[in-house]
Formats: sequence, structure tokens, C-alpha cells
Amino acid sequence: MDPKKLRTLLERLQGGGVSVDDALTELADLPYKDLGFANVDHHRHLRSGFPEVVLGAGKTREQVAAIVLELSKTGANVLATRVDAAQAAHVIAAVPAARYDELARAIVVEQQPIIETGRGTGLVISAGTSDLPVAEEAALTARLGGSHVERLWDVGVAGIHRLLDRRALLEQAEVIVVAAGMEGALPSVVKGLVSRPVIAVPTSVGYGASFGGLAALLGMLNACASGVVVVNIDNGFGAGYAAALMNRRREAKT
Amino acid sequence: MDPKKLRTLLERLQGGGVSVDDALTELADLPYKDLGFANVDHHRHLRSGFPEVVLGAGKTREQVAAIVLELSKTGANVLATRVDAAQAAHVIAAVPAARYDELARAIVVEQQPIIETGRGTGLVISAGTSDLPVAEEAALTARLGGSHVERLWDVGVAGIHRLLDRRALLEQAEVIVVAAGMEGALPSVVKGLVSRPVIAVPTSVGYGASFGGLAALLGMLNACASGVVVVNIDNGFGAGYAAALMNRRREAKT
Amino acid sequence: MDPKKLRTLLERLQGGGVSVDDALTELADLPYKDLGFANVDHHRHLRSGFPEVVLGAGKTREQVAAIVLELSKTGANVLATRVDAAQAAHVIAAVPAARYDELARAIVVEQQPIIETGRGTGLVISAGTSDLPVAEEAALTARLGGSHVERLWDVGVAGIHRLLDRRALLEQAEVIVVAAGMEGALPSVVKGLVSRPVIAVPTSVGYGASFGGLAALLGMLNACASGVVVVNIDNGFGAGYAAALMNRRREAKT
Amino acid sequence: MDPKKLRTLLERLQGGGVSVDDALTELADLPYKDLGFANVDHHRHLRSGFPEVVLGAGKTREQVAAIVLELSKTGANVLATRVDAAQAAHVIAAVPAARYDELARAIVVEQQPIIETGRGTGLVISAGTSDLPVAEEAALTARLGGSHVERLWDVGVAGIHRLLDRRALLEQAEVIVVAAGMEGALPSVVKGLVSRPVIAVPTSVGYGASFGGLAALLGMLNACASGVVVVNIDNGFGAGYAAALMNRRREAKT
Amino acid sequence: MDPKKLRTLLERLQGGGVSVDDALTELADLPYKDLGFANVDHHRHLRSGFPEVVLGAGKTREQVAAIVLELSKTGANVLATRVDAAQAAHVIAAVPAARYDELARAIVVEQQPIIETGRGTGLVISAGTSDLPVAEEAALTARLGGSHVERLWDVGVAGIHRLLDRRALLEQAEVIVVAAGMEGALPSVVKGLVSRPVIAVPTSVGYGASFGGLAALLGMLNACASGVVVVNIDNGFGAGYAAALMNRRREAKT
Amino acid sequence: MDPKKLRTLLERLQGGGVSVDDALTELADLPYKDLGFANVDHHRHLRSGFPEVVLGAGKTREQVAAIVLELSKTGANVLATRVDAAQAAHVIAAVPAARYDELARAIVVEQQPIIETGRGTGLVISAGTSDLPVAEEAALTARLGGSHVERLWDVGVAGIHRLLDRRALLEQAEVIVVAAGMEGALPSVVKGLVSRPVIAVPTSVGYGASFGGLAALLGMLNACASGVVVVNIDNGFGAGYAAALMNRRREAKT
Amino acid sequence: MDPKKLRTLLERLQGGGVSVDDALTELADLPYKDLGFANVDHHRHLRSGFPEVVLGAGKTREQVAAIVLELSKTGANVLATRVDAAQAAHVIAAVPAARYDELARAIVVEQQPIIETGRGTGLVISAGTSDLPVAEEAALTARLGGSHVERLWDVGVAGIHRLLDRRALLEQAEVIVVAAGMEGALPSVVKGLVSRPVIAVPTSVGYGASFGGLAALLGMLNACASGVVVVNIDNGFGAGYAAALMNRRREAKT
Amino acid sequence: MDPKKLRTLLERLQGGGVSVDDALTELADLPYKDLGFANVDHHRHLRSGFPEVVLGAGKTREQVAAIVLELSKTGANVLATRVDAAQAAHVIAAVPAARYDELARAIVVEQQPIIETGRGTGLVISAGTSDLPVAEEAALTARLGGSHVERLWDVGVAGIHRLLDRRALLEQAEVIVVAAGMEGALPSVVKGLVSRPVIAVPTSVGYGASFGGLAALLGMLNACASGVVVVNIDNGFGAGYAAALMNRRREAKT
Repeated sequence: MDPKKLRTLLERLQGGGVSVDDALTELADLPYKDLGFANVDHHRHLRSGFPEVVLGAGKTREQVAAIVLELSKTGANVLATRVDAAQAAHVIAAVPAARYDELARAIVVEQQPIIETGRGTGLVISAGTSDLPVAEEAALTARLGGSHVERLWDVGVAGIHRLLDRRALLEQAEVIVVAAGMEGALPSVVKGLVSRPVIAVPTSVGYGASFGGLAALLGMLNACASGVVVVNIDNGFGAGYAAALMNRRREAKT
Repeated sequence: MDPKKLRTLLERLQGGGVSVDDALTELADLPYKDLGFANVDHHRHLRSGFPEVVLGAGKTREQVAAIVLELSKTGANVLATRVDAAQAAHVIAAVPAARYDELARAIVVEQQPIIETGRGTGLVISAGTSDLPVAEEAALTARLGGSHVERLWDVGVAGIHRLLDRRALLEQAEVIVVAAGMEGALPSVVKGLVSRPVIAVPTSVGYGASFGGLAALLGMLNACASGVVVVNIDNGFGAGYAAALMNRRREAKT
Repeated sequence: MDPKKLRTLLERLQGGGVSVDDALTELADLPYKDLGFANVDHHRHLRSGFPEVVLGAGKTREQVAAIVLELSKTGANVLATRVDAAQAAHVIAAVPAARYDELARAIVVEQQPIIETGRGTGLVISAGTSDLPVAEEAALTARLGGSHVERLWDVGVAGIHRLLDRRALLEQAEVIVVAAGMEGALPSVVKGLVSRPVIAVPTSVGYGASFGGLAALLGMLNACASGVVVVNIDNGFGAGYAAALMNRRREAKT
Repeated sequence: MDPKKLRTLLERLQGGGVSVDDALTELADLPYKDLGFANVDHHRHLRSGFPEVVLGAGKTREQVAAIVLELSKTGANVLATRVDAAQAAHVIAAVPAARYDELARAIVVEQQPIIETGRGTGLVISAGTSDLPVAEEAALTARLGGSHVERLWDVGVAGIHRLLDRRALLEQAEVIVVAAGMEGALPSVVKGLVSRPVIAVPTSVGYGASFGGLAALLGMLNACASGVVVVNIDNGFGAGYAAALMNRRREAKT
Repeated sequence: MDPKKLRTLLERLQGGGVSVDDALTELADLPYKDLGFANVDHHRHLRSGFPEVVLGAGKTREQVAAIVLELSKTGANVLATRVDAAQAAHVIAAVPAARYDELARAIVVEQQPIIETGRGTGLVISAGTSDLPVAEEAALTARLGGSHVERLWDVGVAGIHRLLDRRALLEQAEVIVVAAGMEGALPSVVKGLVSRPVIAVPTSVGYGASFGGLAALLGMLNACASGVVVVNIDNGFGAGYAAALMNRRREAKT
Repeated sequence: MDPKKLRTLLERLQGGGVSVDDALTELADLPYKDLGFANVDHHRHLRSGFPEVVLGAGKTREQVAAIVLELSKTGANVLATRVDAAQAAHVIAAVPAARYDELARAIVVEQQPIIETGRGTGLVISAGTSDLPVAEEAALTARLGGSHVERLWDVGVAGIHRLLDRRALLEQAEVIVVAAGMEGALPSVVKGLVSRPVIAVPTSVGYGASFGGLAALLGMLNACASGVVVVNIDNGFGAGYAAALMNRRREAKT
Repeated sequence: MDPKKLRTLLERLQGGGVSVDDALTELADLPYKDLGFANVDHHRHLRSGFPEVVLGAGKTREQVAAIVLELSKTGANVLATRVDAAQAAHVIAAVPAARYDELARAIVVEQQPIIETGRGTGLVISAGTSDLPVAEEAALTARLGGSHVERLWDVGVAGIHRLLDRRALLEQAEVIVVAAGMEGALPSVVKGLVSRPVIAVPTSVGYGASFGGLAALLGMLNACASGVVVVNIDNGFGAGYAAALMNRRREAKT
Repeated sequence: MDPKKLRTLLERLQGGGVSVDDALTELADLPYKDLGFANVDHHRHLRSGFPEVVLGAGKTREQVAAIVLELSKTGANVLATRVDAAQAAHVIAAVPAARYDELARAIVVEQQPIIETGRGTGLVISAGTSDLPVAEEAALTARLGGSHVERLWDVGVAGIHRLLDRRALLEQAEVIVVAAGMEGALPSVVKGLVSRPVIAVPTSVGYGASFGGLAALLGMLNACASGVVVVNIDNGFGAGYAAALMNRRREAKT
């Protein structure tokens, strides 16, 4: 079934082939997408400037390769997250244009030029080196979503001067993503230094009473600095996606 | 101690009253704020366009009234959140310019014109009528932070067509706040319909296995729609604050 | 705005007052409810055979009374749950037709004859006397939803013969609701004796490691007997509602 | 010992071989099953129309194969759930009539014709593709339990129009199973569209703050739509079993 | 209906008034209690040597008084636990024979002589003074259940020598109840000193990360000394009941 | 240092070689065990009638074998719990007298005759076949501790008549251990049928919201039948140990 | 019984009134405290330099007053924590020398001069004004324990420069107590700036996902700076006590 | 950029090459570390007397070896914790001076003499043999941090006399670390015996309701003995580090 059905119905009404009452009845029976709502979804990714996305975790090598192959046939950019080295090898064998970002544990198939849609810079900060995979996943996603991205690695709160040294970088950012595990304290400190939105990503880095990132998550939700917003544990993709949205020029919207 | 100390030191160095080595030593001993960092904080609220904020919960009537009085003497706008009727009466007796917003449970002292700093509209949505205090707190905060605000009440997922009826309102918003309790499902649905950032506020509305808003919080953190960010349970203030930040024109920053 | 807009648009199209292309454009802009979906919601309660429902908990006496009054003006039956004695007095003063069920802590305004829609009996079982308010709320809701209801009180697993004595009652039921607190073991035992669906309602009866009904909830979700389904802690209303649905004759659906 | 003992005792009483007092004493000592209660259990599966069920998880390949073999010798249909490919190979080697359903991760030995016992259709819905194993387990179980089953895959709340497109399918179902992970919001939306019971199955799909399905479970227990009932995380079997029970014609009961 | 029905049936069979087949049929329809199982429950408390028990918490003054009055009419001893002073006054007004034990927060109506049924002494130990209400509830229950009871108060692990001073008392006990809050460490230490069973009762004494007794409960479940068994938080009654059972002479059983 | 020091000191005092004051001072400096307390521990296992115990979990094959070998050299009986097949092979190679109980996952070295110390029978009950390893570990431990043991397998609450059939067995037991996973309801039902102590062992059998045995643990702690005591999840050893203690004749104590 | 028994025994041995063997036997039967261990406890508080301590929470006004009165009769200093204004009035009426510290919610009876026992300064830091009661309780306890105390209030991580301004104060402290609620991030930042021990006190300040201080507690346990140790939520007393111990000169120990 | 910039600026000011106003402006733009704060961090480890530290867990063999190699090139001592045997072999191949401590699972490269900085002895106590890796990690860290260390193994609370035998050792310690799993009760008992600080380390030793060390952690946070402080689960390194800090002579500080 397709939207043509709606046009046909209206033409029949115009042409006298159907009464108003019968048209009303038929209209009530038309599927939702025929009524024009479907375009919310149709070609959404292409128009949105975001790539097609695949979550690698929990899939076999063959499944990841097959899905990336299929999506890349549409001509869209493709991002596969949480892809390990073995999965990556399979994907590259199937899709030669695919490139593996080892740090971000992500596959990127960049077939479309990335149109810069941001009003400014998306800055991605990591507290420790163990938080880098999550932070880099955020940075990669924001870039694919059209943002200019800067990175600031390894500036955890136990050595606060390392962060203070980079005031200029902090102040010029349009939106900031902060990835931190353990006690998750960095977003509060960062937000206290800037007047732009801060997106906090708790990571599962830690042990014992970190409970797989729960400590960092709770810390960030209770951030004492106003204007900190939070995403799920290890959700670098979600943070980068939100950062790109917040940074996007209105006219860039699709 | 004040920043003049730094100037005096430099003048003494210039005048030969102190050697470079001694100046370096004295410099190392000057407090942080004398070194120019303090302006991060100084007059922050006035310049930021946000009001001074007081949390009423856990304070006596007298304490709330005294703090609001003191803050309003600075000439700034003042927002007191989680203020009950008895506290409000005390505040108004002490600060005649104060106005009580019963729905948002908030006191506002509006002494400065609110300069519109947003690029567009901040839309605040509530799932149910019980979520209104939190939603209205968000709306009030966003408005005081310089955003034009629209409201969409009572469009929970169990009656999804009420939300779908308002597509135009959703699509024209620059940023959307969604307050919902119980299962906290509304932000995912809203985000699926728009391409702008969605700030989810879990509320403590519910009973039993809602565990004081935990169910809604977890639901929102696990939202299947990309681009949803989350604040603490019942934190309407934080959501409105973040919304105003996201909506703010760069040149409006202070 | 109302559905007449759609009819008007179609009549204008029929009459040549608008082109097909313009009609398509206007159609895309019509709110959802004008497109005929609204009838999912409109008059839903009256047609469904269920009463209008108000949750009394967390509302003032005046609010409960006002809402019950307003709803009862539609002519529908009204059920207000979690109503304490003081709230009830206010409601009855405002709505003389209202009746207070002390055990179920509920107000009922029965203005419409209740049409029996069930295929059989809805049996409501309570484990202990402290579970009675929740159990009776379920029974009352199921009756208002059109089910013939039987009750079996105080047949907890520590005195299993009391339950076994009533095999006949168990076996003739079309659907069974079981309310139990503490360890929440009763639904498993009941389901082992019958071949009809069992709806388990954990109650917050207990102390210490019952954690407000969590122990009973987990027990019921892990029931070793197949065919047990569960609702939220203390959600007698939800259990009774679901029981009435399960018991309902297809032709009785609206 | 067998029920004949009871008959023998009564015959001895009839024939004067035992006094009434002694018969009462002997009666009190007879095992429970000799008193006629045992038929609650005896041949329960065959009569109930449900297959014999084995849980594969946590068993060795040899154990699963041996149990399926033994059960299939009774002539009953057999369902083994949570069976991986290696276990399945062993089962099929031992029981050639066994068939492996890879999606549902289930072994079925269908030796008896499945008698349709339902009043209508059992509709099984999944939110995402990762929820399919749980959803298909539910569908398979419901079919083996005598229900006509329809499937609706991949209609999560982030793309709500895909669900709305299938209103007709939703409305004609007698009972609906909804499998969803992450925030578990779909059952509320579905229940808002229909007037039949909805059985929600939380799945462990997700990561971080999904806590192995806990977020979805809590979401479903707090569903804001009345008439949603819930089963354990990943319990597709339990949902399908309950759906078949709810759909069953009374006369079909055994 | 009463057990006489069974006798009557057997007499009719003996007298030829009914055939064996019909008797079998009627027998299958007799309620469970008529078949002799009921005596498991009937007069259970009187025979068991335990008093009738009422939980005062969550009941009104009038309810507690009415229930104690009713139970005491049977001539049995009655124990009402978790009774506050106001409830107690009501009970005593209604039942003059009732006595209030302020420390144990319990009402006792002692109408029957307590027959000592124990093989030895039940020793009840408390870690701190705040644990006394729970400890005394255990001691009172054990005594009413027929045990000779000794008490050892305020011997927490932070002053371990106070416990070691009383070795003789520890070693002569037949069974030991240990009530402790906070970290709940005392049962392990006690069990390390004796070779008899130790019943651990976690109390809700503590604050912060004691989480209402959860810390003590977990500590006791993880006791490194073999032979420690645990009851619910604050369940002094359950501990005393179990102690009396463990101490009971076999011939004393009823 | 050894107890001889104390004797020597006293002899020196007796002989005038030391003053009373100096003896007091030296006494205060003697280690605790020299003061006669040590015999609480010395040869504790041999005298107690319990075997030496090793926890196999978390140890390498070599470690388990070495420890069992060392302990068996003392001539005592040895019990190693949570031993897998590979560990068992190593143990048997090192200690030919060792025997592996596959069901209980335990190694037993029985070098001493087990002296029956119980007053009656210890009955061990399991709810399902998956609970057998824990149940059998309890049975084995109780037997090694001197109790006559009976077993009753697979009598879960979903088929309650299987339990009721064995009333005689239940009633003659001196103490009962009940191992159950999932909802953990069986101990309440069993305790309702008997007047002896019931030791409940939650098992980690289950999935999803069983949370590794937490659901069963909470269920048992909230058992509505008085006289149920609980041990840690999967702690069959602890339950069997406590059962042997409760069953032990006083004169059998060491 | 008293230590004289031991002296008497030794004198009898010396005088030939008892044999060595009999003396050994009697010695084994003497209570622990007679053996000289008791002095670990006797006069412990006086010698330790710490006051006697009473926890006011959960006690009636009369109880608190009576205990403080009794303790102050020993001539020791007395500290009563968690005392509200009403309790304080009762205490002061009973013990005129008592002084109420409203901020710390504590009663102090200072009858002994406080001997300074510290090697340096104990610095107490609070993150926010709401953390002051806990911080002041720590400061008060440390002072009563013999430490010189400095205070640094309201230097939370969202305004990090306020902390950095006070480097000199931080660096000269011997031990630092940090009280913080919400995300509990301050101890990590402080520890990163100093090389002395930091004692972190989580407070219950916060709402929603702070879960009564759990978020702050977890944050502090996961502090990324080495050398942070933690006490229970709101346990200002414990933190101050530990700080005084850490600061104490060895020769000051008693 | 380096601190020379600051000197150059001051020299230019002294020499008249820049005005005071311009110097102030340039000063505000200098990075934080140029202003003298950096020395908080620079050479921190060397001066602090602590080794450089690497966490082995979660790193590949190659990564651990490379980091240890790089750090050891600075001439500092290096400590790598949570290193398994395979990682250790790689490290030793790369850094011949490295030594593997199997019990503590740690690599040590000791290139600098360890200067004893403590005022007394750091005593490390373990409750059971399974707690040894954590305890030994603490001991090793404290020694590398300059403390004289004593060890006391296997003195858990179930055999309390083993601890009491070593009073002298306990009393002479300057600071005590106690590692314990299961119920975590040992720190309270130890603190009751001494007047020095006790650092409690919960270990993940245990099963079932120990929840990976949570039971021990909660137990220690709720220790009834004043002066117990706690670190994260299994954090032997943190405990040893804090112990060395607490033991350190002030003049030893760097």
C-alpha cells in the first residue's frame, strides 16, 4: 500500500466517483503512513545528516558484516559501534570501504561527504585513559553527525589543574561531552567552569562498589552544577548524537 | 584580600620595590581569585541571564524568607523552588515583590526584565496531571533563563493520539523537555517524532515498583530513541535550566 | 477544532473549491483527531463498560471531591481508589450518590446499570486479612467492569488445607486474582490447582526484608507455575481491570 | 501404592471386614493421591493441550537430549526452550522427529495434532529485532497451546507510526503479547490502542542501566495503561502460555 | 459442613445405603477438612503450646483490642506484638487480664499455665541497648512457647571481652538467639564460641548505609561461622518461636 | 609459646620464685590461648563430630588436592564442597580414599566411623530437580555431622499434592531442610504442615528477576509460617550443618 | 565479682592453700575481666581523651536527658549527637552545664579540660551549606578528641576556584574531613591537592537518585584519588573521631 | 609552554617592556601551570615516596609490559596491581628488574631505596586465607610507601581467640588495615581492642547474598566501633596507601 491511495481517493471524490460520507469512511480505514505521517520516518537518516547505525555487541561476525553490507548499499554513511577486532575483519572483508577505529571500537563506512551542520565546536572530554573508548565513540558519532569535534583526554578530578590549564578550550565549545567512570565527578567540575550544556556519560570503568558504572551514573544525576544532562552507562554514541543535535544550526535541520 | 594585591605587586616590581624572584614567590602565594580566575564566578548569575536560585525543601519558613530577601537585595531576579504555601506566605511578607506560582511550587522575584536569549521555542511536555508541578518548574526556569516557552500537558503514551495531534507544536520547538512518571516512556515516543534534543525528567509519580521515580529514571536512561538526555528525578529546575542553555544564542552568552 | 473540518475539506474538494494537491496539503496539517483516530479515545469509558477512575492518593479532600463531581456529571459510573475516610466524607457531601467502600478504600458512584459482560466468574483470593484492601479493590473493579465476582479470603500457604477445601470454587472460575504480601507464594500454589489464568497482585504487607512488597513481587515474577501474570505492588485496581478484560465476552467488546 | 487401596478399603467396609472407626483411621493414613486429588496432576499435560516442557538452559547436551527423548516416548508433544545449536544437534540425533526453531532457540517434537482451542487470535509483538528470540518463544508456545498466532515485529515506540499502521491487526486480536527490552514502553502504547488484555514480557536487551532487563520490567509494572500484566524477564514461554490460557474457549478446558 | 459427613458416608456404605462406586464419587467431592487433614490446623495453637498471636503494627487501637478480646475468649494464651502504649491501654481496658511488656512492646494474656517443654535453656543475646525491644520480643515468645529463657544484654563486638566473660552462660545454652543491628557481626562471634545452633535476628538499628537493617541481614547471611541461621529484620517473634521449637523435647510435641 | 608457661608461672609462685604482684603482671602478658581459652578451638572438628571442610570454588585443582591431602593426614573425615569433576579427579589421584559425590559436587574422605548423634531424622526436601545439588550437599553434610537423613525430591508448590502425599515422612522428621529456587515458596508450605524447625535454603535456580537467588531469599525471609529460619543462597552446607546441630542429642555434644 | 578474685587465688597458691593443678582449674573458670583484659574497657573514655557519647536520634526527650545526666556524673565530658531543639531543652534543664550547638545538633558537657593531643590541624571541609550539620558534628567531635580544628565551608566542586583559593589552608592540615552530599565528588578533588589522609563523609543531602546519600557514598568509595577513606552516610561523629585518632601524637595515647 | 613565560613576563615588566595593565592582561591568559600550581603535580610521585602505580586488570599483557617499562625508565619505583601470571611474564621479559609477588598479584620494580617515613608499624590483618591477595596488596603498598609492615593472617571472628592471642601486636601498631569478606565483621572487633585508626577493606570473598563484597562493605560502614574508616571492595592498594599516609611523619612529607 502507498500514499497514492490517498491521492486516488481524493481524485475519486473530486470526480464524483465517491460520496463525501464514503470518502470519510475510507479515510478512516487508510493505514497511518498513507496519511502523510510516514515521512517522519522515510529517508530519515539520509536527511538527518546522521549515518545508519548498527550495534555490534551481541551479534555474530557474519551478522554484523551482513547488516553493514546491506546498509552501505543504500549509499548512506554507516556507523557500527561496539565492534571487536574479529567482527571488524569480517566487515572489512565484506565492505572494502569500511574503516575500523580501534580506539572507538567502531566501523565507519563514509560514502557521503559529511556536511558541517554545527554552530560551533563539540568538545569531548575523558577523565581517564580507560574512559577513552566511550569518549572516542562519542567524538566519532558527533563528527559523523556534522559537528566539528575537539578532544581533551585524561583530565580527571584528582589532578584538577590539568583541566584548569585548558580554560580556553572549554570556553569556546558550543556543547561538551564528559566521559568518566569511578565516581563520575568530572561533569560537575566542568559545568562549573562553562556556561554551555554539558552531556555526562558514565562509564563502567571501576570495580567493587562502582557496580558496573552505577556509582558514576548516580554521581552525574546528582551533579551539583546546573545544566548537566546524562545518558546511559557507556553510551558514547548517545552522547555524541545528542551533542550533534544541540550543536546543529536550525537551517541545517531536515 | 582582593585583586588589587596583584596590581600592587606588579607595580612594586615595575617600581623596583621587589625583585623578579621575590615577585615569583609572592605570586605563588596569592590566592586563586586574585589571579583573575575569580571572574568565572563573580556576577555569574547576573551575566548568565539566570536568576539566583534557592531550594526551599528542607528549610524553615524563616530561612527561605531570609535568603530570598537577601538575594533580592542584589537587584537580581530570584527563583525559589520546592516552596510550600506556608513558606510562600512568609516570603511574600518579607519580599512584597515576590510572586508565588502554586502549580510550580515556586517563588519568583522578577526585578530585571528577562532578555529573550533563545534561538527558538522551549517546549515543555507532561505525561500526566500529576507530573505538572515538575513540568511547570521546568517551564518557569526556562522562561527565567531567557527562553520562549510553550506547554503541552497530559499527553501520556496510553493515549498516544493526543500527542500526535500536536505534531506542528513538536516540530517547531528548538528543544523539548518531557516530564513523566510511572514507566517514563514518553520521551522515547516524542524523540521518535522530532529531530531536536529531548530532555527527559523522571518524576516520582507512581507507587509500588516505581520506587520513588526509579522506574521512570531507568526507562529514560534506556530510551530506544537516540538523542534523549536525562536529569535527576523530579529535577524540573535542572531540565528547564539545561533547556534554556541549549536554546541560547551564542552571542547571548555572557 | 473538530472533525467537521475534515468533512468541510472533503466537501470543498467535491465542490471544486480546492484542488487535490491543496487538499493533500491541508490534510497533512489537520490534527490527528480530525482524521478519525480520536474515536479510539472518545467516550472510551462509557463504551468500554468500565467506570471513570480517579486515584485518591496524593490529592486533597477538595480535589478528590471536585474530580468525582465533575466526572459524575457525565452520567458515567465513577470509581475513586485509595480514598481515606476524610476524603470520602468530602466526596459524599459533594456527590450524594457516592458510596464509600471502607474495606476497599474506594468511592463508587453507580449511575449506570452494570452490564454483565463476563463469560464466567472472576474469583478474587487473598492470602491474609491484611491483604484485604487490595483484594477488595480488585473485586470491586472487576464487578464494575462487568464480571460476576466471587471472593475467597485468608487462605495463605501456611495453612494450605484451607485452600484445598475450596477446590470447587477454584475450578469453576474463569479467571483468578490472587493478592498476597510477605513471600507472595500463593499464586504459584493456586495456579498449580487450576487451568485458568491467574493474576498475581503483590501487596506491601510485611516488614523488614519485604521491602515494601518487593519480596512478594519478585516471588510472583518467579512463580514456578506456568500461566501466572503479575501487576504492580498493591495494584488491586489493575488486577481487577485485567481480570474483567480476560473474562469478557468478545461480543461485549465496544 | 495406588488408588485401588481406597476402593479396597471401601469394599472391605461394605463387606463388613472392617468397622467404620477403623476405616476412618485407615483413611486418615492413606496418601493424598489415593484420595482422588492426584488426578489434578495425572496426565495433566496431555489433557491440557499444552506440550511437555523442558528448560534447556543450564543442562548439558546429553541431559537435554535424554529428557526430550524420554518425554517424547509418552506420545506427547514436547517443547524444549533455551536450547542452543549444539544442544539441538544432540536432541535431533536422539529424537529424529524433533525440529529446531533457531529464532526461538527451541526444540519442538510435534507428535499430536494441535487442536485449536482459542476464541480468537493471539498477537505477538516485538519492539526490536533483538527481542525476537523472546517474542518467537512466546508465539511458538501459544501455538502449541492451541492458539492461532499472528506476529508483528519491530514496531518500537521510537517509530510509533509503524505500530499505528497496523491498527486493524491490533484490534482483531483476542489477547496480545508484547516483548520489549530497554525502556519497555511498548505495552503501554499498545494497551492504549486496544481493549483486550496485554501481556508484557520484559527482555534483557540493553546495556548499562538496563540492568539485565530490570529497567524494562519496572517500566512494564508501572505501565500507565490499565490492563497490562507482566511476566518475568525473557519469559517468552510464560507469556505465550498465559496468552493461550486467556484465549482458550471454556469448553476446550480439560 | 463437618467431619461427621465422612462418618455418615462410611456408615451408609456399611449399611448398604450406597454403592462403593458412589461412595468413591462422593468421597472425591468432600471438602479437604472432612478427610481428616483439618486436624493439622484445628486447635493447633492450644496443642502446640504456643499462644495465639496478633501483629499490632498497622492496626487501630480498636482493632487490636477487639482481636485480643476475641482470641482470649477461647481460653488460650494470647501474644500481641508491636503494640504501642496507646494500643496497649485500649487492650487492657478491654481485657483486664492483659499485661503490657513495655520493653518488648508486647501484650500478653496468660490464661493457661505455660508447660515447660524445652530440653534446656534458650539464651537471648542483644548487641546493643537499641536492640533490646527485638531481643525481648524473642525472649518473651520463647518463654510462652515453653522454653526456660536466659538473657545477656549489651555484649556487642566492639567490646568483645564483655561476651567472653560469660562463657559459662553461652556454653550451657541449648539454643541461642542473637539480636544485632548495624553490621550484625555478633552471631558469628557467638557461634565461634559454642557448638549449639545460633538464630540471628538482624535489627533495623542504625542509619545511613544500614538501609533499615539490610546491612545486618546481609552480614548474618554471610556469617563465616557454620551453623548460624537467620530470620527477617526485627523479627524477634520468629526467632523466639524457632528457638522454642529447636529446644522442644520430642515427647512435648503435639 | 605454649600453655606450659602458665603452669611454670604458677609453680614459680608456689615455690616462692616470684611474688604475687609480679605473677599478676606476667599473667596479664600471657597470650590468650595460654589462659585456657584455646581449648575452645583445639581439636574442635574431631570432637564436634563434624568433618574438616574445604570450599572448592575459586581454588585450582592443585590447591584443592593439596588441602584435602593435608587435612586427611590428621585422620579426620574431610568434606570438600563445590568441587567440579576436574578438581575431583585431582583430589582422588592425590587421596585414593576420597570419593566424589557428583550430585552434591562434593568430595568425601571418610576415615572415621560416623557416630549417630541425632535425636531423630533430618529430612531434606528439594522443590525442583535443579535444586538437587544444593539439597544433596545439605543431606551429605547432615549425615557426616551424625544425623540420620531422609530425602524428598521434587515436591514444588506448583504440584502441592506431591508434598501432601508424604505427610507421614514430614511429620516424623526432627528437623527439615528445604531447598528451593525461583519464588522460594516451599518452606512456608512445609512449615504449615509440621511442628518442627524448618531450615530454608534459597538456591540460585531461576533467571531474570530471580536475581541469582535473591527472590527466593527474600521469599523465605518473609515466610508467613512461624519457625522458618534461613541460610545464604546455595548454602546447602550451612543448612545441613545447622540441621545436624538442631538434631543432636545434648550428651552427644563435645 | 572483681579482679580481687585473681589476686586471692594467687595468694592461696603462694600460701599453699591450693595446688597448682587446682589453681589451673580455677583459673580456667574465672571470668574474662578478672584476668586483666577488662582494663581494655575500664575507664576507656576518660583515658582515651574522648568524651562519653550518646546518640540522641530515636530516643525520647526524657531518655536523652537522663543518660546525659548519668554520664556527666562521672565527671567525664559528654557529647550527645543528633539532638533536636526539644531534646536539648530537656537536657539543659537537667544538666545546667550542658551547652547546645544548634548547627551540629549536639549537646556538649565540658567538665574536663580538653588536652590537645594532635600533631597538627584537623581541617573540616563542607561542600554545601546543607552539609554543615554533618561537617560541624565532625569538627566538634575532633575538637573534643583533642585536635585543633579549622573549618572551610561551602567549597563544592561546581565552583572549584573557591577551593583552590585556600591552598595554604589545605596544605598545612594534618588530616582532612570532607562532608559532601549529592554526587560526593569533593573528596577526590581535595585529595588531588594534598598529601595527607582525607576522610570522606557522604551526607544525605540531595533528592531523587541520591537515594538518601547512596550516590555520595558510592562516589566516595570510588574516588579516583588514592588515600581517600570513607565513613557511613551522615556519620560526622565517626569522621571526627577517626580524624582525632589519625592526628594524635603517639605519646598522647592512653 | 613552560613556567619561563611567567618569569619572562615579570622581567619585561621590571625592564619597562610592558605596562602593568598589559601585564595583568597577559597574566590572566597564562595557562594554569605557568602560574605555579603545576608543582602540585610535577614529580609528585618521586617526592611523595610512593611508587608509580599501574592497574593491570583490563589491560593486555603487552599494554601492562609497555607501561611498566615506560614508568621504570623515569627511575621511580613502580607498582603494578592486579597482574596475573601471564601478564607478569611479559612484564619481566620487558623489565628484568621487575619482581612478581604471586600472592599480592603485583609487580614491583624497586629502583629507589625505600625511605622509612613512618612513625610506627602498619599492621595488616586478614580474616581468612581467601582474603590474602587483598591483604598482601595492602601490605606491599604500605611498605613501598615507606611504612614498616607487620602481618597477621587468618584471625576471623569465628575463632576470636586467635585474635586475642595477639594483643601485643595489635596494641603496638600505629595504624591497622583489616581485610575481610563475607560479613566483614573483623574491623569492629579489632577496633574494640585498640585505640589507633583502623582501615577496613571489604573483599569480594563469599557467594550468594555477599553480592560481590557488598555485604562486607555495608557491614564495615556500619561498624559499631568508632574510628573505623572504609575503602572500596578489594581495594588493598587504597588501604595500604592510606595506611602509609596516616603513619607518615610530618617531616617526611614532600
